[in-house]
Amino acid sequence: MRIAIDAMGGDHAPKSIVEGVMKAVEKYNDVTFTLVGDENKIRPYLTNEKQITILHTDEVISGDEEPVRAVRRKKNASMVLMAKEVKEARADACISAGNTGALMTAGLLIVGRIKGIERPALSPTLPTGDGKGFVMMDVGANADAKPEHLFQYALMGSIYAEKVRGIKAPRVGLLNVGTEDKKGNELTKAAFEYIKESNAVHFVGNVEARDLLNGVADVVVTDGFTGNITLKAIEGTALSVFDMLKEALTSDLKSKLAAAVLKPKLKTIKNKMDYSEYGGAALFGLKAPVVKAHGSSDDNAVFNAIRQTREMLQKEMVGTIANTIEKMEFVTTQENGGE
Amino acid sequence: MRIAIDAMGGDHAPKSIVEGVMKAVEKYNDVTFTLVGDENKIRPYLTNEKQITILHTDEVISGDEEPVRAVRRKKNASMVLMAKEVKEARADACISAGNTGALMTAGLLIVGRIKGIERPALSPTLPTGDGKGFVMMDVGANADAKPEHLFQYALMGSIYAEKVRGIKAPRVGLLNVGTEDKKGNELTKAAFEYIKESNAVHFVGNVEARDLLNGVADVVVTDGFTGNITLKAIEGTALSVFDMLKEALTSDLKSKLAAAVLKPKLKTIKNKMDYSEYGGAALFGLKAPVVKAHGSSDDNAVFNAIRQTREMLQKEMVGTIANTIEKMEFVTTQENGGE
Repeated sequence: MRIAIDAMGGDHAPKSIVEGVMKAVEKYNDVTFTLVGDENKIRPYLTNEKQITILHTDEVISGDEEPVRAVRRKKNASMVLMAKEVKEARADACISAGNTGALMTAGLLIVGRIKGIERPALSPTLPTGDGKGFVMMDVGANADAKPEHLFQYALMGSIYAEKVRGIKAPRVGLLNVGTEDKKGNELTKAAFEYIKESNAVHFVGNVEARDLLNGVADVVVTDGFTGNITLKAIEGTALSVFDMLKEALTSDLKSKLAAAVLKPKLKTIKNKMDYSEYGGAALFGLKAPVVKAHGSSDDNAVFNAIRQTREMLQKEMVGTIANTIEKMEFVTTQENGGE
Repeated sequence: MRIAIDAMGGDHAPKSIVEGVMKAVEKYNDVTFTLVGDENKIRPYLTNEKQITILHTDEVISGDEEPVRAVRRKKNASMVLMAKEVKEARADACISAGNTGALMTAGLLIVGRIKGIERPALSPTLPTGDGKGFVMMDVGANADAKPEHLFQYALMGSIYAEKVRGIKAPRVGLLNVGTEDKKGNELTKAAFEYIKESNAVHFVGNVEARDLLNGVADVVVTDGFTGNITLKAIEGTALSVFDMLKEALTSDLKSKLAAAVLKPKLKTIKNKMDYSEYGGAALFGLKAPVVKAHGSSDDNAVFNAIRQTREMLQKEMVGTIANTIEKMEFVTTQENGGE
């Protein structure tokens, strides 16, 4: 397997990126890596050149650039060259911790969509109290979704949860304002019928945002606008509560002493909420695995994204999605023809 | 001022409802109350009949009934009779801790909309770290909103924040997937222009869900679908983190001892996140204040909802909204006429 990596993307690049790759090289001897970026900046962190190729470039897309414009104009940016490695079949998958919008654009324009998939979905795995986590999609690749897009997300998420996460008959839920069948806005009402009638996934119906972290489903589908806001509401609330805790626990000596005793336990809770443990956010629906590692990724988060990408290649995620969609299309075409 | 109260709505009715009213009677001598519900069940909690009238009925709408059907069929339900008190001018405002959907329906069908307001908005005040809180609207009165609805929410929220919450030039934000002006889905892109060009509120632009609890705006507008899910994501995440804390802090003796020291601090944090302190969720856009107290309201939450309703009456919220909308309509009509 050959994975191309944007060595210049993310808050701690190239250090964390290269260190994460070094960890992966130690562990996996079946993967080779192409590190795309400034060779002079990458070399100092290379402890081992085994399985490594460097593709040098000076150009970088920064976090605040307008995505489509950046991808179109910066032909030699590390992220663009990384995607080209995949497009031109010199790599099987790619990973970046850089500008999310730019990566979605590069994925769409350079790597390209699977035939039959209208909209790729950005799909992180979020933490649950029991440590199992759930895949949420879409969290922002496509702001205005149609019912058939949500159905395709359900399909892709289910395949990922089963193949890569090893969950048998993954429970697929539709994020909604209530659990009753008829609840929601026009989009979710139509998507509910679409997913239910397809019989293509193990659909558990509508799920509510307040139950997400309790593990109410293995795959939660929603439009990119709602998904992005839900993800950020979860992150923001967890951070706010931890900040309040920190303030309270350091406000006087007595609290500080008690807090010292509890520190390992609090650390465990914080780790439970840390979704970089589950890998990066995969862009489902593209011709090859394209994975977004968190912008603040450390070497461990980068390693987890590599582990996840390797699994997606081993389990032939993309091929399975393509075949499933092709069969569906066949059924749809036949049905239409028979009417 | 005369407030009608659904004595039978909520998890702890009629006890908490009547006890909350008793607290209000102690404090305010300018409000009279009509308690609507089963007289035999209400009487035991009446410690004081000053300023109290009981309107007896046996019928109740339960929490799991289909709202529109329940309001239409149960003509003598406590919530329906409560709304009629307002419609027939025997009360100036009403409060219920019962079925939220039914209260929205009763508000819309019985109390009625302000002329020019197309959709009422359910508008709770949510907590922030600094204790100031912010008004979020809509959290579920109207799942599919149009840009002009979001504009009207902005207007009503701003009037409420200024008049009732005493905030000068309240900052109005539009909930979105990024803070940049052009971000979002079709709805928020159009609403952004609408609100900005109106110059009717102090618009601070797009705000992100992760910044809500940091007090990024005093009023946050969004469609009822997104608002409902965001609210529940915040609630659910806070609850999950507290649950994990509780588990960790009681897992062994050492932790239990340390936790005992920290208990008052943890309680303070939990209280900070408790939005019943800010009153109930007002339904803005109706001809009179209609306030939804939380289903699990205790006497204190009921008292806070009464305090808030009294403020809305004193500060003439409804009249101000009606006048502002009327002037706007006049401007719009003139503009159209002049084209």
